[in-house]
Amino acid sequence: MASMRRAMVVALLCTFAAPGHLSAQSPPQIADAIGEFVVANRILADQGVIADGFGHLSFRSPTDPNRFFMSRARAAGMVVADDAMEFDLGGQAMDQRGRPMFSERFIHAEIYKARPEVKAVVHSHAPALLPFGVTGTPLRPVSHMAGFLVRAAPVFEIREAGGNETNMLVSTPALGAALASSLGQAPVVLMRGHGFNAVGTTIKQAVSRAIYAEVNARILTEALKMGSVVYLNESEAAKIAKTNDASIERSWEIWKFRALANTPKL
Amino acid sequence: MASMRRAMVVALLCTFAAPGHLSAQSPPQIADAIGEFVVANRILADQGVIADGFGHLSFRSPTDPNRFFMSRARAAGMVVADDAMEFDLGGQAMDQRGRPMFSERFIHAEIYKARPEVKAVVHSHAPALLPFGVTGTPLRPVSHMAGFLVRAAPVFEIREAGGNETNMLVSTPALGAALASSLGQAPVVLMRGHGFNAVGTTIKQAVSRAIYAEVNARILTEALKMGSVVYLNESEAAKIAKTNDASIERSWEIWKFRALANTPKL
Amino acid sequence: MASMRRAMVVALLCTFAAPGHLSAQSPPQIADAIGEFVVANRILADQGVIADGFGHLSFRSPTDPNRFFMSRARAAGMVVADDAMEFDLGGQAMDQRGRPMFSERFIHAEIYKARPEVKAVVHSHAPALLPFGVTGTPLRPVSHMAGFLVRAAPVFEIREAGGNETNMLVSTPALGAALASSLGQAPVVLMRGHGFNAVGTTIKQAVSRAIYAEVNARILTEALKMGSVVYLNESEAAKIAKTNDASIERSWEIWKFRALANTPKL
Amino acid sequence: MASMRRAMVVALLCTFAAPGHLSAQSPPQIADAIGEFVVANRILADQGVIADGFGHLSFRSPTDPNRFFMSRARAAGMVVADDAMEFDLGGQAMDQRGRPMFSERFIHAEIYKARPEVKAVVHSHAPALLPFGVTGTPLRPVSHMAGFLVRAAPVFEIREAGGNETNMLVSTPALGAALASSLGQAPVVLMRGHGFNAVGTTIKQAVSRAIYAEVNARILTEALKMGSVVYLNESEAAKIAKTNDASIERSWEIWKFRALANTPKL
Repeated sequence: MASMRRAMVVALLCTFAAPGHLSAQSPPQIADAIGEFVVANRILADQGVIADGFGHLSFRSPTDPNRFFMSRARAAGMVVADDAMEFDLGGQAMDQRGRPMFSERFIHAEIYKARPEVKAVVHSHAPALLPFGVTGTPLRPVSHMAGFLVRAAPVFEIREAGGNETNMLVSTPALGAALASSLGQAPVVLMRGHGFNAVGTTIKQAVSRAIYAEVNARILTEALKMGSVVYLNESEAAKIAKTNDASIERSWEIWKFRALANTPKL
Repeated sequence: MASMRRAMVVALLCTFAAPGHLSAQSPPQIADAIGEFVVANRILADQGVIADGFGHLSFRSPTDPNRFFMSRARAAGMVVADDAMEFDLGGQAMDQRGRPMFSERFIHAEIYKARPEVKAVVHSHAPALLPFGVTGTPLRPVSHMAGFLVRAAPVFEIREAGGNETNMLVSTPALGAALASSLGQAPVVLMRGHGFNAVGTTIKQAVSRAIYAEVNARILTEALKMGSVVYLNESEAAKIAKTNDASIERSWEIWKFRALANTPKL
Repeated sequence: MASMRRAMVVALLCTFAAPGHLSAQSPPQIADAIGEFVVANRILADQGVIADGFGHLSFRSPTDPNRFFMSRARAAGMVVADDAMEFDLGGQAMDQRGRPMFSERFIHAEIYKARPEVKAVVHSHAPALLPFGVTGTPLRPVSHMAGFLVRAAPVFEIREAGGNETNMLVSTPALGAALASSLGQAPVVLMRGHGFNAVGTTIKQAVSRAIYAEVNARILTEALKMGSVVYLNESEAAKIAKTNDASIERSWEIWKFRALANTPKL
Repeated sequence: MASMRRAMVVALLCTFAAPGHLSAQSPPQIADAIGEFVVANRILADQGVIADGFGHLSFRSPTDPNRFFMSRARAAGMVVADDAMEFDLGGQAMDQRGRPMFSERFIHAEIYKARPEVKAVVHSHAPALLPFGVTGTPLRPVSHMAGFLVRAAPVFEIREAGGNETNMLVSTPALGAALASSLGQAPVVLMRGHGFNAVGTTIKQAVSRAIYAEVNARILTEALKMGSVVYLNESEAAKIAKTNDASIERSWEIWKFRALANTPKL
């Protein structure tokens, strides 16, 4: 029983040490953003957007638009506050402290460079999106929750930017810039044989877009087999996308509840 | 340990405060209905009928047929008794107390106006139903649990009522009335690019219809790919629908057990 | 806190009262069979074979071949020992004590009449099987875990036995006999627009067949879309079916672990 | 309450007894490998690669290349350290102690004979892979997480080695050798009507390949219905496979967390 009690004490210390450590060194708005970022990582894992140790979330620093935060290389479902690392837009860590970094942080860096209004980026391998990327079938909105897909998600073909012999990863500034160029002004870009990225003006919007892009992909996959599909038109899609953005908190509440129930204690 | 004990006390207070508050101000039959309504919300979330912060359940007031109750704008899986708000058939809240309201409460209001026998309405975005709405493939019964679909679910095309530039939401009395007209005397109406509604003469019947409409949609989606489908005929469908209505309690018991195990403590 | 303590005491009493009650009135081999039957019900619920309050399991009495046991009308996932009721092969309860009965107990009664070697029957509405029943696509074995399906599962069309105006339920001895006739010497029979039944010489075999019939149906559903399918031949199917029967305990251990973790405390 | 306390004591004893027993008799590198092997078994169960009592994992002994370890015949999700049994490459147990053995241990034995660099083998019945084996549809990489599938997984047709009247099982050295010959230098081999095997130079690589082979199969199943598919080319596949191998720990962390949360206490 003594060892159980010791284990509990250790667990409690771990729980409180991480945020404490961060709030000691970060301005309040960064500490707040990191808190939301941790929950968002857990949600992405729990909703099946990031099922394993691959895929990642970032957010632009609230105090410096030329910096962004993402986790050290770690499964989204395991992320705690102390995992957050700050990077410049060249993808260089401000204070690496020996922590492993995601090689694809250049996806994030280059999107932040190209899209000043973007404040958060999700990179995901969710299976439901992959068939669209490898067949060129347009991913267009059949659910009003995915109105943001109105112009069909563009597809990034890494062979166009990197030739036929890449390792498929966007692990250099040049490939990141090419990806950002494929994304253009869209909210979502598919990556052939790889996954997709969703961007947002807030962490919550980027996460929400990633979740509903996946839902829409599943619906469309089945609808395409049934016959001719009626998509949302431009006006419908644009309007509902705007309306939905005002209601993300409603889903966030239950996504957070479920995520914290299914991932390690914070 | 003191803070843990404090947290438990707070949790207990929260648990009991909500129902206490309501039973103080509500007649017993309303308090009872709200209790069932809370469980029903949790079931809809747990069964995947309402996966997120969108979708909602309402019931007609047992004491005034011109009133109905639905939750403040909140994820079904999080609803507690104190979230229940009373509305008139114009969609106006009786006692809003600053609580946010679902903009689509007019779906409910107008169905209650048009269908006096209807006592409960579910609005859902369940993915399995969407392909039918966007392709016009008739949703007919292939499972005897969905005999209520015998005449194939009608499809509400919001462009017919609201033109080509709506935001897809049924957020006015006029659009609600058009939806109720599409529903007609049916138990379920599909909404193109959006979701569906199921109605019932009790909360349990509406919930049960929503659940089995989803199951039937999944079965039919696969059956259609296999070949020519034998549907229930009118007599079979009508008879089994009536029989099933008498047995909802059997499913309710386990739906409730699972829902309360997977959603926040009441 | 007093009410919580009272609730716990009640829960404990319920837990122990049921088996105590039964062992007081049942011979040991029946009490043992009921214990296995309860676990089997939970497994059928947890494995998705019986998702709701419909579907049921029965076993032939170990002390009288003209009797069988099934639960009072209750969701499989909730069944406790005291729910077990004894019936004769006419479907009459030996000691009803006011408990509600499944109207389709005649499925079980008539199969026990027609197939002396059958000791257990599962009736299920699992969605994966339904498409085969409504399209006539033969359910044949593509997984060696479903070798028992070698002759393709026969399909029971209730219209042939009961005409075009039944309520789809096998709720009379005559319909039960017609179903048993469709089943013939097979281990599984599909019921058009309804579900399927699996039989076995033990509870564990019937449950195992129901589980792997469902798995095989999911695999075949996708294989049929890919092209020409190689099924197990008769020799392969017969031999592996026999081998698998000797290894059910291995799966039973984890099925039981998961089922008891996900259903109410026994 | 006394019995509850007694049950807890028993549970604690069980928890610590098994590893204690093993570390007493095994060199440290074997005890370490068994620890990883137990976690790996739980992961295979939790990720749906081995859903029941069939399917198994083995690893080559770190102290003797002519020996390998696998569990006694038991569901992967239930495996504890004391279940590990040592075999020679003829499939003979070194110290059986009456424990039941998997009849298909010859899959493992013969692969270890034929492929000196292979240190671990997974045998799985995961449903998503089966359609490829029974239709001959090539399983090629559409997700960069499955780059190792670059040459398309070979298919083992047991009829070629064992004739048309086998029981489908690879339960002799001769059938194991034929399977190893079908595998050749590939990382994955499909078994028609049965399942697949994935091999690796570490336990973690074999497990990871099994998991992503399954994910890739699900993605490709849908992509094939959409139209012409762009697969990873040889260069892309080979390069990303190598890169992914360096990052398995990232997924392992969350796979392990989830597996231990969802299987019996160690």
